[in-house]
Amino acid sequence: MNALEETIAQLSNTAHCTTLCHKQTNNVPMPNTQILGQIVDTLRSILFPGYFGHAISNASMLSYQIGVHIEEVSRLLSEQIFAGFCFSDNTIELQQAHRAAHEATAVFIKRLPMLRDMLGTDVDATFEGDPAAKSCMEVIFCYPIIRAITNYRIAHELLLLDVPLIPRIITEMAHSETGIDIHPGATIGEYFTIDHGTGTVIGETAVIGNHVKIYQGVTLGAKSFPLDQNGKPIKGIPRHPIIEDNVIIYANSTILGRITIGRNAIIGGNMWVDKDVEAGSMITQRRRD
Amino acid sequence: MNALEETIAQLSNTAHCTTLCHKQTNNVPMPNTQILGQIVDTLRSILFPGYFGHAISNASMLSYQIGVHIEEVSRLLSEQIFAGFCFSDNTIELQQAHRAAHEATAVFIKRLPMLRDMLGTDVDATFEGDPAAKSCMEVIFCYPIIRAITNYRIAHELLLLDVPLIPRIITEMAHSETGIDIHPGATIGEYFTIDHGTGTVIGETAVIGNHVKIYQGVTLGAKSFPLDQNGKPIKGIPRHPIIEDNVIIYANSTILGRITIGRNAIIGGNMWVDKDVEAGSMITQRRRD
Amino acid sequence: MNALEETIAQLSNTAHCTTLCHKQTNNVPMPNTQILGQIVDTLRSILFPGYFGHAISNASMLSYQIGVHIEEVSRLLSEQIFAGFCFSDNTIELQQAHRAAHEATAVFIKRLPMLRDMLGTDVDATFEGDPAAKSCMEVIFCYPIIRAITNYRIAHELLLLDVPLIPRIITEMAHSETGIDIHPGATIGEYFTIDHGTGTVIGETAVIGNHVKIYQGVTLGAKSFPLDQNGKPIKGIPRHPIIEDNVIIYANSTILGRITIGRNAIIGGNMWVDKDVEAGSMITQRRRD
Amino acid sequence: MNALEETIAQLSNTAHCTTLCHKQTNNVPMPNTQILGQIVDTLRSILFPGYFGHAISNASMLSYQIGVHIEEVSRLLSEQIFAGFCFSDNTIELQQAHRAAHEATAVFIKRLPMLRDMLGTDVDATFEGDPAAKSCMEVIFCYPIIRAITNYRIAHELLLLDVPLIPRIITEMAHSETGIDIHPGATIGEYFTIDHGTGTVIGETAVIGNHVKIYQGVTLGAKSFPLDQNGKPIKGIPRHPIIEDNVIIYANSTILGRITIGRNAIIGGNMWVDKDVEAGSMITQRRRD
Amino acid sequence: MNALEETIAQLSNTAHCTTLCHKQTNNVPMPNTQILGQIVDTLRSILFPGYFGHAISNASMLSYQIGVHIEEVSRLLSEQIFAGFCFSDNTIELQQAHRAAHEATAVFIKRLPMLRDMLGTDVDATFEGDPAAKSCMEVIFCYPIIRAITNYRIAHELLLLDVPLIPRIITEMAHSETGIDIHPGATIGEYFTIDHGTGTVIGETAVIGNHVKIYQGVTLGAKSFPLDQNGKPIKGIPRHPIIEDNVIIYANSTILGRITIGRNAIIGGNMWVDKDVEAGSMITQRRRD
Amino acid sequence: MNALEETIAQLSNTAHCTTLCHKQTNNVPMPNTQILGQIVDTLRSILFPGYFGHAISNASMLSYQIGVHIEEVSRLLSEQIFAGFCFSDNTIELQQAHRAAHEATAVFIKRLPMLRDMLGTDVDATFEGDPAAKSCMEVIFCYPIIRAITNYRIAHELLLLDVPLIPRIITEMAHSETGIDIHPGATIGEYFTIDHGTGTVIGETAVIGNHVKIYQGVTLGAKSFPLDQNGKPIKGIPRHPIIEDNVIIYANSTILGRITIGRNAIIGGNMWVDKDVEAGSMITQRRRD
Repeated sequence: MNALEETIAQLSNTAHCTTLCHKQTNNVPMPNTQILGQIVDTLRSILFPGYFGHAISNASMLSYQIGVHIEEVSRLLSEQIFAGFCFSDNTIELQQAHRAAHEATAVFIKRLPMLRDMLGTDVDATFEGDPAAKSCMEVIFCYPIIRAITNYRIAHELLLLDVPLIPRIITEMAHSETGIDIHPGATIGEYFTIDHGTGTVIGETAVIGNHVKIYQGVTLGAKSFPLDQNGKPIKGIPRHPIIEDNVIIYANSTILGRITIGRNAIIGGNMWVDKDVEAGSMITQRRRD
Repeated sequence: MNALEETIAQLSNTAHCTTLCHKQTNNVPMPNTQILGQIVDTLRSILFPGYFGHAISNASMLSYQIGVHIEEVSRLLSEQIFAGFCFSDNTIELQQAHRAAHEATAVFIKRLPMLRDMLGTDVDATFEGDPAAKSCMEVIFCYPIIRAITNYRIAHELLLLDVPLIPRIITEMAHSETGIDIHPGATIGEYFTIDHGTGTVIGETAVIGNHVKIYQGVTLGAKSFPLDQNGKPIKGIPRHPIIEDNVIIYANSTILGRITIGRNAIIGGNMWVDKDVEAGSMITQRRRD
Repeated sequence: MNALEETIAQLSNTAHCTTLCHKQTNNVPMPNTQILGQIVDTLRSILFPGYFGHAISNASMLSYQIGVHIEEVSRLLSEQIFAGFCFSDNTIELQQAHRAAHEATAVFIKRLPMLRDMLGTDVDATFEGDPAAKSCMEVIFCYPIIRAITNYRIAHELLLLDVPLIPRIITEMAHSETGIDIHPGATIGEYFTIDHGTGTVIGETAVIGNHVKIYQGVTLGAKSFPLDQNGKPIKGIPRHPIIEDNVIIYANSTILGRITIGRNAIIGGNMWVDKDVEAGSMITQRRRD
Repeated sequence: MNALEETIAQLSNTAHCTTLCHKQTNNVPMPNTQILGQIVDTLRSILFPGYFGHAISNASMLSYQIGVHIEEVSRLLSEQIFAGFCFSDNTIELQQAHRAAHEATAVFIKRLPMLRDMLGTDVDATFEGDPAAKSCMEVIFCYPIIRAITNYRIAHELLLLDVPLIPRIITEMAHSETGIDIHPGATIGEYFTIDHGTGTVIGETAVIGNHVKIYQGVTLGAKSFPLDQNGKPIKGIPRHPIIEDNVIIYANSTILGRITIGRNAIIGGNMWVDKDVEAGSMITQRRRD
Repeated sequence: MNALEETIAQLSNTAHCTTLCHKQTNNVPMPNTQILGQIVDTLRSILFPGYFGHAISNASMLSYQIGVHIEEVSRLLSEQIFAGFCFSDNTIELQQAHRAAHEATAVFIKRLPMLRDMLGTDVDATFEGDPAAKSCMEVIFCYPIIRAITNYRIAHELLLLDVPLIPRIITEMAHSETGIDIHPGATIGEYFTIDHGTGTVIGETAVIGNHVKIYQGVTLGAKSFPLDQNGKPIKGIPRHPIIEDNVIIYANSTILGRITIGRNAIIGGNMWVDKDVEAGSMITQRRRD
Repeated sequence: MNALEETIAQLSNTAHCTTLCHKQTNNVPMPNTQILGQIVDTLRSILFPGYFGHAISNASMLSYQIGVHIEEVSRLLSEQIFAGFCFSDNTIELQQAHRAAHEATAVFIKRLPMLRDMLGTDVDATFEGDPAAKSCMEVIFCYPIIRAITNYRIAHELLLLDVPLIPRIITEMAHSETGIDIHPGATIGEYFTIDHGTGTVIGETAVIGNHVKIYQGVTLGAKSFPLDQNGKPIKGIPRHPIIEDNVIIYANSTILGRITIGRNAIIGGNMWVDKDVEAGSMITQRRRD
């Protein structure tokens, strides 16, 4: 038991674990993944009324529910954004962080109708692109892409509002649930869909047009990245592909670097692509024989 | 705050969100993924007694437990199937939907002993096919394929009983937990196993024989699908591969279209296959040199 | 309802389900994935103080928290290891199993400071290897590899202490959450990282050096495995690759068999490799043209 | 263990436990005290906005919250009333029970504004009658009488709508929490209060005017009750006291039988009263000396 | 904060708090009121089938449920009795405590059918004695006496088996919920009931015959108790009243000392009685006038 | 349904419900009884180590646990005191309220060792005063007085620190659980005990010396209270009894007004006392005969 106390003392020696131990000004809340999960769930009920939570049987009831949900999201999200600010910058002035969190939340809430419109196009694209889909209802209720694209579109809006940390937590939740890893910094147009989706990766600086369809295991990644004079990767440089409108990329293909896949191009399965692809072209693996 | 009320009003305007808002006849329950998760967990305790939940120490205790579990599944599943019927068809006659849900549940329950037999063959195949497996116990307790194939076999039986929506929700649960995406419509024989499994996709019309072994990242997908006169994909056409008995498909290979992989064939890793493969043949990638 | 009773009787017939039904000596606890999840969560709070759970505002508070967490882990883990011993061996002598569980737990606890040092190198490698990473905090809070490598390093220590079953359950938890499947038997050096990670597989006998970086969808697998005279795979033979220091393996490549990828080698994306690769060499797919 | 099975068989012998075993038509829900507790809690948030649950910061938010709470109460209460009908009468026609439950719920909801007005008078009386009360807020938040009278007024309305069983469950909840036992059948006027309250009993046929104040341990009980020809008490006969306006009854007094305590009368502590008391009179125990 | 650490050090100084700090041999479980609550709830479902928990729709289902409940009670109660032995006696030999706990549990389980018979008489007495009771169902579902007498009869059986601490915890649960305080050591005959019940106290050595009815606020207490040579009360001496068959005691009366209230006697309300009362007599307070 | 909307509108009309509707400055938390319950439970584990929560097996472990518990109480209590300030005074300056809450919490924490000493005397008095008590352990674990006096002593300290609302909530929790109603404003000396306790009331300005013992149903109340010129009771005037050292008051007696019960006096059961009682005297009810 003495050994136990010694181990405890070693593990409590904060001088020793500078990166791994996070100290925080007293009384400031921490970002909380459980509450962020609750926020995303509530947003889902707002964006897809009548699918998650109780049935909607009439329009006036709907407005009461949305009112309460919006109030809840405003309160909780504002706290979490505040926590994100404080967690990311120990020297931030609290009063100002509160105000900034409050403002970012208000702008975000105003953009929810636009977000719902975008998600409506994703649902359509998913339903029309999959012969196995029985109805839009099934798509909304079950398809991983809808969960992943919802989290991404929420996170992307927050990132545009300069909210730190929180957007990445939100896309990683969807990554864990669906195997679809979309960085919140990516730019994605309307009518986007990914079929099956497990293993798909969309990098931070990727730009995707409208009506693009991707399959499972596709990577839109960086090929290499320039290092600074200390040999560390330089952050923020565009290094992921640009995918133009109407492109289809089949399963397990890997598209690397700041290349452009032109409009209407089709990339077959299991391809490795690191050069531009002309609009309208179709590239596939040659068969073994 | 006025802006908030305006946003709430916009989001409550149901005329505007026809696909994304689901209205339902008053007082009819919704399919509930949490309850469906509980149903699947209870079925797992029935099918693998003594693994999940309390230890089994004697046979008479086992029958009490199975009796209670079966009673619970009957009650909850019948409600969820009823909810599935109502959710999928707003005009359904409630009395009739209740009766149909009750009957489908009764037939499903009767098929559980057969389901357990099938799963027993999958456990054997998984144990014997993996040198890293220490015991059948470890396989049942930890292996993702056992979770995925259990959900698939449950969902497939429900699909055969014309239950809407619920089967897909059940396989997508396993997809989220394991990264293995098996459509409930696929047909899969005895002694089936998938090693590791993340990223494996088995499409709706795939047909898989007995003693088939697949690895992670394998896709049994559709290559293309015929469109109707409106340019929409025609639903229900066979478009995924037929995999005959004793076939092995290694990691990350993509098998596309209504082709046949003949008995005893072996497909190497990272292959892209869209033509029939003869029985007994072995195809692999040529190495770079 | 008579049919129901008959089904219950069939399902309770334990003679019929020998592999699928686990009987256990009375009153011995079962391994419990929920409690194991709680143990891993508590270990995470110990290893990364101030990230998960409450904020740390001062050093003496930290030591109280770590003391309580260590006490909790000691108690719960000792019970679970005991349960693992009993589950894996029905004939074990209980007193001795208790003692062995207690001792294994004590040794494991002593190794936590070393584990934290190792994880510190993994965090550094992950942060420095990804231009999208904003800070080590973001890496610790959100990156799937940190979750996966933490579970692996915990499980690997337990495996070295001959704890059955529990290590595999712990790595499979991370597999389910991240899509990264690392067998607890693998050997992994310092400064290890996997980017994105979904679909990556690291087999039981793989050996990985220091400063190795892997991407999503990479398999370090077995090519084939010798069978014994009954046609069953022989367990425990080295059959997975050796990856030397400073190697990089890009997305979706499949490395199979007991081959060696030499120091500083780079393996491009979507490769299929089943022969040794020389130190310092770089192999990539030829492009289609 | 054989003994165990025998005990189980004995306990399952329903022929033997006719009163103690309740059988119910299949699939009809049971009255559920947990859900009834949730209903009462939600009603409390509706009746006392801003006290229980989240803070109210503006009027439009309040209407969303009340809308959602009313919807929830309507749905849950209707189910519980239905369950009450079925539990109390095994032969009831289900369709009709549903309709009756729905109608009773609708009438009850309409009476909530009146209920709130009544409770407002009780809060005033409680605050003004207790020098220890610091504010109406403290009274609403902490005083047992407010909890007890709220449950009573809810239950009494339901009793007037001929709802079986549920009203008594609701008043017994308050009895358990506060020690105040008010039968839902009692009639109680405005501005009613009980100080401290533990042990106070108000019987089924008691009639209490306006501005009445009672202390802890007071019983308004039946002295004796006529038996029918089988020696069983005849149900429903008025047998508890009538307490007219402005009466005060001090601690631990026992008032028995269908007597009348006239307007403005004061009954001292520890009295035993079984005869009418004239309006305006004051009766107290003579002291020992 | 330094002050905080000092306070923590003071509070951790176990030398200082000998009575208030309970030390326990490592790894022995503690009596747990939450689990004891669960045990009593499960016993209630066994004793009153179809009232608490799910509806009972047929006899074979009932036997499965009772089987599972009995199994659960056996397991949990045995652990709690063991915990009770260890908590009460730090020097107990563990192996022997386990055996004793197991045996006491087995005997207790065998007595459940007898317990149900006794409780059946209490339900009858309660229903027949209260004109406000609408049905035996209402009595079982709502009446505090049924909850209190159930806990008492369970606790009394355990006390007869020399189980320490646990019986008192069980009766105090009912005391908290109902305000009825029956010591588990009291002896109570068949057809017992208490109306309303808040404030009723029945002491450790009280002896109550058959068909006794008591009202709220009645005390069956000790008048004084002999002290030993250290001035401490001598434990275990009979010091509470004997109440013979068919006695009625009205509200708030206090019966003190080892006196006998003879058969068929009636004690009025608010009486103070410390001498024997003859069989058949009736004593009441004289009225003030 | 239109009727429903109308009811919702009526219930949302805040102009109409001024006393019953509490509005609060945005973003300020509400006092939360659930969190206050958690705070009291944690204080109980600190004050009685090894009784509630996990077993204590050694002294260093104890200090970790107390450290963590003290940290938790400090954080949560400070928030609740802040909420209490804001709830009670809408115009309070937030910064100042935070500081005051923080300071009150710090002083309260420092007083915990003294509180534990006081409670130690109460445990002794309870054990020695009850022949039915088997051990101090049983007293601490089960006796309602220990729960009630613990809550009272905590609440009384907070009241002395001018904390509004919270102290009363804490004593009312104990009132609900035990039926013992002690106002936090009362003054109570060492070695205090109440036997059984249901229905005992101790008023706001009561003063109780050392070694006082009270039984169930005893009221220390106000006889009457002066009204101000508006006919409202004047708050804060001493109006409850003074009970000097070593007094015993038996069950169901009512002591009213600012009278003094002198040292060593004994008050029998069911008495009504509204005049001073001399030191050493003994008053009891004359018997009926």
